[in-house]
Parts: sequence; structure tokens; C-alpha cells
Amino acid sequence: MNLTNRKKKVFVLGGDGFCGWPTSLHLSNLGHEVTIIDNLSRRNIDNELEAESLTPIQPIGTRLKVWEEVSGNKIGFYNVNLAEDYEQLLHLLKTEKPDAIVHFAEQRSAPYSMKSSKHKRYTVNNNMNVTHNVLCAMVESGLDSHLVHLGTMGVYGYGTAGMKIPEGYLDIEVKAETGERIEQQILYPTNPGSIYHMTKSQDQLLFQYYNKNDNLRITDLHQGIVWGTNTKETNLDERLINRFDYDGDYGTVLNRFLMQAAVGYPITVHGTGGQTRAFIHIQDTVRCIELALENAPTRDERVMIFNQMTETHRVNDLAKLVSEMTDGDIAYVSNPRKEAAENELHVKNDLFLSKGLKPTTLQEGLLREVTDIAKQYAYRADHSKIPATSTWTKEQKPGIPE
Amino acid sequence: MNLTNRKKKVFVLGGDGFCGWPTSLHLSNLGHEVTIIDNLSRRNIDNELEAESLTPIQPIGTRLKVWEEVSGNKIGFYNVNLAEDYEQLLHLLKTEKPDAIVHFAEQRSAPYSMKSSKHKRYTVNNNMNVTHNVLCAMVESGLDSHLVHLGTMGVYGYGTAGMKIPEGYLDIEVKAETGERIEQQILYPTNPGSIYHMTKSQDQLLFQYYNKNDNLRITDLHQGIVWGTNTKETNLDERLINRFDYDGDYGTVLNRFLMQAAVGYPITVHGTGGQTRAFIHIQDTVRCIELALENAPTRDERVMIFNQMTETHRVNDLAKLVSEMTDGDIAYVSNPRKEAAENELHVKNDLFLSKGLKPTTLQEGLLREVTDIAKQYAYRADHSKIPATSTWTKEQKPGIPE
Repeated sequence: MNLTNRKKKVFVLGGDGFCGWPTSLHLSNLGHEVTIIDNLSRRNIDNELEAESLTPIQPIGTRLKVWEEVSGNKIGFYNVNLAEDYEQLLHLLKTEKPDAIVHFAEQRSAPYSMKSSKHKRYTVNNNMNVTHNVLCAMVESGLDSHLVHLGTMGVYGYGTAGMKIPEGYLDIEVKAETGERIEQQILYPTNPGSIYHMTKSQDQLLFQYYNKNDNLRITDLHQGIVWGTNTKETNLDERLINRFDYDGDYGTVLNRFLMQAAVGYPITVHGTGGQTRAFIHIQDTVRCIELALENAPTRDERVMIFNQMTETHRVNDLAKLVSEMTDGDIAYVSNPRKEAAENELHVKNDLFLSKGLKPTTLQEGLLREVTDIAKQYAYRADHSKIPATSTWTKEQKPGIPE
Repeated sequence: MNLTNRKKKVFVLGGDGFCGWPTSLHLSNLGHEVTIIDNLSRRNIDNELEAESLTPIQPIGTRLKVWEEVSGNKIGFYNVNLAEDYEQLLHLLKTEKPDAIVHFAEQRSAPYSMKSSKHKRYTVNNNMNVTHNVLCAMVESGLDSHLVHLGTMGVYGYGTAGMKIPEGYLDIEVKAETGERIEQQILYPTNPGSIYHMTKSQDQLLFQYYNKNDNLRITDLHQGIVWGTNTKETNLDERLINRFDYDGDYGTVLNRFLMQAAVGYPITVHGTGGQTRAFIHIQDTVRCIELALENAPTRDERVMIFNQMTETHRVNDLAKLVSEMTDGDIAYVSNPRKEAAENELHVKNDLFLSKGLKPTTLQEGLLREVTDIAKQYAYRADHSKIPATSTWTKEQKPGIPE
């Protein structure tokens, strides 16, 4: 126990982003020596989309200075494009020798990944090369670092015919030539719903291969949709505040509903809202990363997969909940995605619960989110950025209220 | 029947390579209007490895000129890096509107893909971006072209516990929450044995996604190890001769054995030679592409997967066969690959047989290959390029005879 809980040197790839920033602070607060590697691509994409976080996030330099003032802990920072600058990544691994690498450095929006050929191509190129470069550099450096990767529940696809989605691996039976049944356990067959989700399915094959060939120690976290904004650490000073995306590309569904209600925009439900999704609060995300680091696999173990989610909800039920809480109106709009109109979703999350996760429930966190964030920063909202305009094919229509 | 057999406009991506060149001639000879798109990367890799085809292949310009003289058919050619020049690819699709695209444009050697970080990274970056660019451009152009992709038997992995490997899709049973058994058919769970094979597994996810989201018509051919050199068309003039790779990176196992015997080099068996592999003659490869084009799926069908192989053999049995035929000695050397020492392999190939494939057997083709190719061009061999020196990890040793 002492060994696994000792203070670690941790690289956080993509540590300036929505999940990466609060994770970096959380790990730093626990006493780990944190180094962020990030090319600030998420901020550059804000420039491209002419969109902005609802919350007033500070430049990374300010963030790190304030964190040191507040906590006394230094966090290192390198601006590196991990998809392109392999040599720099390798150099950092060889010189800093991290015990663990937390990998958030992928383009993470499904709608952004579907906007155009350029966006599809950027997402595939960036996500494949970053993940592969990290694995390749881990082998070349000869380090025994533990890689913790942020994956997505979306690799499973939705609609599982009465089955509870297991944590990464599926028990199956197949028939041998003799007619005998053979039991096997396989990586859950993926059915991704966007180019973004597809890249996370491809990541799984990279992890499986490097684990098999090079015995790399890897944990893959299949995360649900994150809601909420701040964590214990980002709450310590307004200049540490986390991003809150509300635009049609990067805003996650529940946060969008909260913001829409707060600014008097209709709560936009795509289609019937019959889609069931898995959710997790950002505070639980950072706690899950902590738990994943404490429970690293050995070199003889296969890739460890956790379902990182705490609740499932039907989108329409969430819209109604937010509507009741805020007196906001619901608008049923076209669904820009190509997906099943309705689906069931049952998910196992026993692994994190068994390791000590105590979930933040919607019930306790939602109202605080409305008053502390959505209403407080409503004045910063650009209403023109709210509709979801990225469509999955030419046949789909943007989700714009009439 | 008339419609499916009409003359087509066909792009052959990677049409200057070992499979691409004879395929281009075969399709041209059938009356299809063929355009090769190739950046000549395979020739550049020969430069890098300081290796060369045993057979004296001609520059692409000479090849095409001779083909026109011999057959009266023109084949078009564009030198395009498909991983990088997306706009040029899109332009060619929009202006030439091919009925079909045959895609050989991937780095295809497992040992090359494992040589170093640089080679691993090149293989992932090239193969992912080429395949994705093609799919992306097909959607953006709005064409209804049929994509035929050369995949590999290697995505299945080896050792299938008494099961006959199906053609791409596996029937499984899983347990529902109620305890009830549910039957499903899934993409065969992959277990690739090298970075190269891993990229072909990733390709499958790209195909599955673009077929689902955009109804692209795609055929994926899971090909065995190709042996032989020439086809009916490449035999028409020596200047049309196909590549014969014998070096440790690009030479395929049976062709290497033939060449080793012909030049008086020991027949190098890796490990015990207990590995069982699937094989196909190059003449059958080109025939399979023809059949795949004739049997295109509709827009409502899922990705069509064929196992493109005709025989399975244990590597050691092949070594003995070649040894008996040529009086060559066998040398058992270290296996540079990380793989099972022995495996069984049973493969279904009913689909191509049902479409009319008449396999070329080892028995009829092998001796001709020794006398017509290996012995005739033995004088061109550089013996220093024969050993397999690319090792899968630092623990593996190169396959060099003592």
C-alpha cells in the first residue's frame, strides 16, 4: 500500500483542458509532482469557432502562478504538439522519468469531429498520432511508466439488447468446429457514433497491442458525459476556474441545458430526447484518475478498463429536470446526429465503486451549478454559439429552435 | 449481370507495388479504365533499406509505356502522397469519378513496421491517414464509388482454439441481464501481431464507421501471405515484370525460401517453424480483386469481408518442401518476432470459391517459380540483405544463420 500511494511524478497530457486542468490541480494537491504537457489546442479551437468558455478561464501561465500562490505547489508546463513533436516527448520522458502519464491530449468533441472533412481528418490524425507517439516513446525510453488514458463510454455504442455493459471485456461463447461451445473473453465490440468516438475505439487496439508486445502498463477509462465545472481545487480562487463550454460543438448536454435555462434560451432537446446516456461529475472524474493511479496494473496484466460514470439518464428527463428547476422552456429540435432516436443503457461501474469512489449525484450538484456558474456568468454568453450546427451527414439538420 | 460486369473506371491506389502492379494490368486487360495513384514509396523504401527487387522492375513510366505497346491499353498515373495531399485526391475523385477504388496504398511489411520508433510511427501515420483520407474524400465528393481494400488475415491473430476462422464476422452468444442467451454477429475480435497488422485492424473500424454513417460501399479483403511473382499480364514482356522481394523486411516467407535455395543460402526457418499461415498466389490475388469488383455490396449492406487465401501450411513444412525440391539446406534461426512458437489455423474461404475462384496450388506453381524467377535472377541477389534483422522487442534476436 505504501508503495502504490507514494508521491509520484505525473505527466498530464492535455492538462490545460476541461478534464485535464482540474485533474492536474487535484493530483498536485495530493502531493504528486505534476507536469502539464499541452499545445493549447483547445484554446486555439475556441479562436477558430469564435466561441469562448462561459467561465473566464485564465492563461495557463496565470493559472500555474495562482496555483503556486494558493497551494505552495509548483506545476511544470511544456507547450508541445504531441502529434508532431515526437523527439521532444521522448526527451521529456527520458529526462523527467514520470511514474505515470495521464493522457487527455485528444480532440474530444463529437460534433467538432463531424463538422467537415478538415475536422474529421484533424481528429483522426491528431488522436491517432498523439496516442501512438506516447506508446512508442514509452517503449523507446525503456521507462515503466503507468499510462492512464481517458477513453469514452461511446466506444460501446448504445442499445445493448438487455445486456449490462461490462467494464471493457465481454464474456462470449463461440462454437468450435466440433460443435462444442468455447467460452472466451474479448474486448467489447465497439460501435462508435462519431469520428471522435471511432478514434477512441482505435486507441483501444493500440493499447491492446502495446500491452501484448511490450508489456506496457495501461489503464483505459471509459468515461461518461461530464457535467459540472469546478472541483475543490478550482474553487480555491476564481483565477483557477475551470472551462464551461456551452457552444454547439464543445458543450456537453447537461451543462448546455443549465446554461440555456440561465440565459433564457430554450432548452434544446435533439429529436425526442429518448437517448439514454451515462454521466459523471467533474469532481468524480478527478477522483477516478486518482484511483486509477493508485490501482495500476502490473506488467503481466492486460489493459485495465474502468467504466468511469456514475448515473444514466434519458436526455429528455434531464431537460425536464432543468426546466422544473429553472422555469425554462424546452424546445424539441432536429437531431444533427445520426443515431437511434431512443435507447436503453445499463452500465456496470463496480470497479471504481469498489476502489472507493463516492459519486456526486445530480440531485446534490445540479442546483449549485445553476446558481454558482450558469447564472453568475450568463452575461458572458454569446447566444449565436448555442445551436448545434455540425450535422453527421447532409441528410441531418442542425438543432436550431424555431 | 450486364450491369455489374460492365467496364469500370478504377483507381488503383498503390498501383506500382507488389500486388498493385499486377492488379492494375489485370484490370486493364479486362477492359477497365485504370488509373494508378502512387507516390512510389515502396521504391523509396528500397533506397532506404539499400535493398532491391530480385527481379529487374522498370520505372513506372516504362512500365506504362510497355503496357500500352503490348496491350493497346492506356493506364493513367498520378504521383500523389495520399496521406498528405488530401485536396489532390479529392480533386481526382471529383474530376475522374471512378466507379471503384482499389486501395493497396499502405505500408505492408510487418518487420519494417517494427524496425524502430520511426518505422512504427511512419506505418501508423501513413496507413491511418491514407485510409481515412480516401473515406473522407469519398463522402465529400458525393460519389458512390465502391472501395476494395487489401486487408490481411493477420488481423485475426493466430490460434483460434478449434474454431474455423469465419469471413470477417463471428457468431457469438452473450448473456442478458435476465440470464437469457442473446445471439449476435460481431466483427471478428482482432489480435494483430505487429504494428502493421494493428493498422489493418484499425482500418476495419474506419470502414465499419463510414459504412454505418455514410452508407459507403466497402469490401475488405483479408489476404494471406502472397507467393509467386508474375501473372498472365506481367509475363507478357520482361519489362512488365513484378517485384520479387527477398530481403528480411519485405520478402514474404515462401518467396524467401525459394530465393535462398536458388542462391545457395540456407533456408532460414524462424524458431521451430511451427507457425501455420495462410497463402495465396499472386495470380489468385488479381483474380480475387476482379471478383470483388464484380460483387460489390449495395449501399444498404454492411462492409463485405472475404478471406483471400487458398491454402494453409506450417512454415516448417514449406521449408522441407523447398529443400527437397532444390537440395537446399534448412537453418533454424532465432525468431525475431514475438509470437506463439506453434499454432493451428483453419480458415473459411467459401465466398471467393463460390464466386468462381480456381486456386493456383503450391504443387503446380512452386517449381516454375524456382526456375523462372529465383534461379534466373539469382545473380542480382545481395546476400547481406537476406537475414531478418528487425526484432519485435529488445528481447528477440535477429534471424541470422550461424
